[in-house]
Amino acid sequence: MNTTPLAATTVDEQRVRGLARSAAARAGGLTTTADFHRWFAACAERLHTEVEPIALDELVGWHTDPETGNLVHDSGRFFSIEGLRVERPDSAVPHWSQPVINQPETGILGILMSEFDGVPHFLMQAKVEPGNCDGPQLSPTVQATRSNFTRAHRGRDVPYVEYFRDAARHTLLADVRQSEQGAWFYRKRNRNMIVEVREPVAVREGFTWLTLGQLHELLAVDDLVNMDSRAALACLPLAGPGTETVGSPGDAFGSALLRSCAAGPDEGRHTGAEIAHWVTEARSTTDLRARLVPLRQVDEWQSAEGRISHRTGAFFDVMGVRVRARGREVDEWTQPLIAATGPGVIAFLVREIDGVLHVLVQARAEAGHNDVIELAPTVQCTPQNYAHLPAEARPRFLDEVLGADPRRVRFDTTLSEEGGRFYHTRNRYLIVEAEPDWSAEHPDHRWLTVRQLTELLRHSYYLNVEARGLLACLRSLLAAPAAG
Amino acid sequence: MNTTPLAATTVDEQRVRGLARSAAARAGGLTTTADFHRWFAACAERLHTEVEPIALDELVGWHTDPETGNLVHDSGRFFSIEGLRVERPDSAVPHWSQPVINQPETGILGILMSEFDGVPHFLMQAKVEPGNCDGPQLSPTVQATRSNFTRAHRGRDVPYVEYFRDAARHTLLADVRQSEQGAWFYRKRNRNMIVEVREPVAVREGFTWLTLGQLHELLAVDDLVNMDSRAALACLPLAGPGTETVGSPGDAFGSALLRSCAAGPDEGRHTGAEIAHWVTEARSTTDLRARLVPLRQVDEWQSAEGRISHRTGAFFDVMGVRVRARGREVDEWTQPLIAATGPGVIAFLVREIDGVLHVLVQARAEAGHNDVIELAPTVQCTPQNYAHLPAEARPRFLDEVLGADPRRVRFDTTLSEEGGRFYHTRNRYLIVEAEPDWSAEHPDHRWLTVRQLTELLRHSYYLNVEARGLLACLRSLLAAPAAG
Repeated sequence: MNTTPLAATTVDEQRVRGLARSAAARAGGLTTTADFHRWFAACAERLHTEVEPIALDELVGWHTDPETGNLVHDSGRFFSIEGLRVERPDSAVPHWSQPVINQPETGILGILMSEFDGVPHFLMQAKVEPGNCDGPQLSPTVQATRSNFTRAHRGRDVPYVEYFRDAARHTLLADVRQSEQGAWFYRKRNRNMIVEVREPVAVREGFTWLTLGQLHELLAVDDLVNMDSRAALACLPLAGPGTETVGSPGDAFGSALLRSCAAGPDEGRHTGAEIAHWVTEARSTTDLRARLVPLRQVDEWQSAEGRISHRTGAFFDVMGVRVRARGREVDEWTQPLIAATGPGVIAFLVREIDGVLHVLVQARAEAGHNDVIELAPTVQCTPQNYAHLPAEARPRFLDEVLGADPRRVRFDTTLSEEGGRFYHTRNRYLIVEAEPDWSAEHPDHRWLTVRQLTELLRHSYYLNVEARGLLACLRSLLAAPAAG
Repeated sequence: MNTTPLAATTVDEQRVRGLARSAAARAGGLTTTADFHRWFAACAERLHTEVEPIALDELVGWHTDPETGNLVHDSGRFFSIEGLRVERPDSAVPHWSQPVINQPETGILGILMSEFDGVPHFLMQAKVEPGNCDGPQLSPTVQATRSNFTRAHRGRDVPYVEYFRDAARHTLLADVRQSEQGAWFYRKRNRNMIVEVREPVAVREGFTWLTLGQLHELLAVDDLVNMDSRAALACLPLAGPGTETVGSPGDAFGSALLRSCAAGPDEGRHTGAEIAHWVTEARSTTDLRARLVPLRQVDEWQSAEGRISHRTGAFFDVMGVRVRARGREVDEWTQPLIAATGPGVIAFLVREIDGVLHVLVQARAEAGHNDVIELAPTVQCTPQNYAHLPAEARPRFLDEVLGADPRRVRFDTTLSEEGGRFYHTRNRYLIVEAEPDWSAEHPDHRWLTVRQLTELLRHSYYLNVEARGLLACLRSLLAAPAAG
């Protein structure tokens, strides 16, 4: 067994130790936590935005293509709502069709990092999105589609985008294309970047520097750290053994989590090669075929009351909104959004195996994935969609998660999905310790270490966006004070 | 800078040393080279096959879909010829459409490995494909689409497929999904596997065990080692430092090649992180959109004389063949094939940098790629397609390759592309040492080490099939006797 605890991150030990110092700085560095909350409240005031649901035929600048029925922007850019026809001949639902967001262009989700007094800080933005439930959320330094920063919509400049478009001048901690929700996007690909700068950076209105420790604390606040921030943070190189310098691991859970981060890529229940084989096998034996079709060819979905909905009311609606915002690139616009029908559950079951915390991940096929399967949380579902179905149709392990002894629930926060595409679409993010004697065996699930998940994140399309966000939450528990 | 010469291959040192012994066994092990040639000649006799070009409307079991014009199999399986509409707004040819092979199912290209007297051998098959120029070629142990081994075409069993379908019982040296020709396939994905068995394996008619050294020798024979074998062999873990035990590296070129294999993943002109950034940047800034469309919507292509051809005669034809074969799963059939218009050039320019051989690879966009860009050979083109164009339209570095001093040409063999889909489609595979003072700088090209290319091959869709095949050829030069 070969172990490469630091080499595999391709960042030098010095930076990794810096990240450990940043994670330990929970009370803040350049910005105190009290400062942050005052600043954020002021942003919320300044960025006040009105969002009003409207009928799809009231959208301005969007039209229904007469031939296909697709909902498209008049410029032909941004994104479109099209149809997706899916065949899964070996599954319980062997074929269906659905609306889907097609957004072929790649955006940048980028976080700028800089050291102050030896402690790395991250430049975060208070950003309002039309789908947000309640005011702004904390977004990456840059969260922009290519149309945004090439100015197709004649908006304002995208602040700081030059650091990411000319990133080779700086130091890249992460630069990797990743997918987004495979149930709602067709092959969506965004670029997740973390760029370290060593030159002074002017802080513009609506931006602030936070330590990794502060971000970890804020992840536990409902609807605060947005999806793009969570996904990008998961791509940070692991602090690894250096973390041991930041203090006590807290309790047995903390020790096991620390070892899960510091382990070599082949140390754990499975080797790296076994995990690669499992993913390749799942991708190669799952017969899933998805193809874009005209939206008007989508069965079982209907237009009514200005929305497109499934005839049962399940899954999601396509709806319109009118937005009147301050502090956005343009001040007023309308756009379509997807609204999931109910809050979802996104959960990791975790357990210690030989002293090392392992995470139960699922090889999950989604119609919009780039390559059939990505690794997903143990549980990822909208329970409401199963309310009328028999018990055996319930998602695997959902009852273990929802019925867990509260003392075993290590993380439980309701977080929003991307407010630029999803309307009031929230999930309960949970990390639950399995009972000590609980051992689940299912070919679609495997126990992986945090190190192994983080290694996979160096490459595209291994972890889905839900797993990436939840991994950031799990890493936020590292070196936290001992619970109760 | 962190170096992990062996760890990164995730196979233990013992196996890596075994591979080095296998590479050194050029005269053969279980099978002598003389035996091999007698066996192969007998196979050619036994497998005698007649292939007759026919008009597309003479195909049996295939039909033109009345709605789309696509050429499809009556079963709906195997593959189909459809249309692809491509937009590249920033390029010299901003949009085009073309026929394309759509084969959504994943096949297995698998080589079985077993040790005899401590020397790993590979079980190779003499296989006739309808597009081959001249008799059988050497294929992997298993080269089969899912329809083959799930018996959709009511053919014979696929020998040895059980070792790959139940691979977890054995030891996996490689198991990774990779693309095939992005100019002709739409998102083709095959599974490249190398499986080591430690139990006796009965050798069936048409199969033989060869050492890695023998395969390396045979790669230098025109049209012998087929595309699938080349691509799978490239996925073998690198022998690395262990290779030094097999003898002298020959000459300065051999020494530099050896160091290129043994270097750490961050040792070279660029670090691993810089390479990842380069690939992500190229993928994210290249605006290439490809979408399947009905074949009847493809412009500039016409049906004439029973084929589908470009109006200029360039690029390729879609044609039909009737095959009468012995030793195949079924004895007589017809099928469509793609025939490229002329032989192509697939070349690596290589040079020593600080004593380590580097390979000039190209970040190349192809319409059928899974994620826009894959790394390709320095030169990959069909010169004939440029014959009538001005000099400035000639592919970059083609003249350096074709005009090289013959003493700098380290590899020059004409090899066939996959004969199950391509008719008499051959490329000249070249490895050419650049002049010592030659330094090319172009944003689409980078100098990488053999180790770095091999590391990328552990993951999907970094190297295109042409680069993978050529990398196998480059690795075949390792530890060869000194040239002249």
